[in-house]
Amino acid sequence: MGEVKHILVAKFKDGTSQQQIDDLIKGYANLVNQIEPMKSFQWGKDVSIENMHQGFTHVFESTFETIEGIATYVSHPVHVEFATLFLGHLDKVLIVDYKPTSVDP
Amino acid sequence: MGEVKHILVAKFKDGTSQQQIDDLIKGYANLVNQIEPMKSFQWGKDVSIENMHQGFTHVFESTFETIEGIATYVSHPVHVEFATLFLGHLDKVLIVDYKPTSVDP
Repeated sequence: MGEVKHILVAKFKDGTSQQQIDDLIKGYANLVNQIEPMKSFQWGKDVSIENMHQGFTHVFESTFETIEGIATYVSHPVHVEFATLFLGHLDKVLIVDYKPTSVDP
Repeated sequence: MGEVKHILVAKFKDGTSQQQIDDLIKGYANLVNQIEPMKSFQWGKDVSIENMHQGFTHVFESTFETIEGIATYVSHPVHVEFATLFLGHLDKVLIVDYKPTSVDP
């Protein structure tokens, strides 16, 4: 229950092929197997209808047990190598981390 | 498993008090009780360390069973009233919806 969500919202550069995008997503997913504090990964294409997505097209959500785990992930050599490749294909990127809280209304 | 995530990333206007922020978050959470297709709600403050959050400070995640459910939510009078109030207190906002997919690396 103490999990921390790591949300990356992205827009790939024009000219990035579908094959390249698929390979990058596989590479991102594969970090789960290589970086211990990263517990799970999911992604999806933006399907919003409110036109407040500011051109972003993809969402990537990773889950960690602790904020410290995200720091370990960020500085991990496997992540650093992947991030350099991945960010090179992005036109826009936004990263937010948060510890989800529910509210009793 | 067919759920759709509705992610809103926000920065409140300078001068919005903590009490106002707390009340707005309670109002957001309370939409779950009033708008049938909205299944759950959670939120958290940005704790990211990569400095790629572009000034955004809060994340709000709602879950729906279908993309059509989000359309019902967006046009629901209770949501329209809340959104007008909420957006009036925001300096920045980004909304993306996605159907989470896992990848077998």
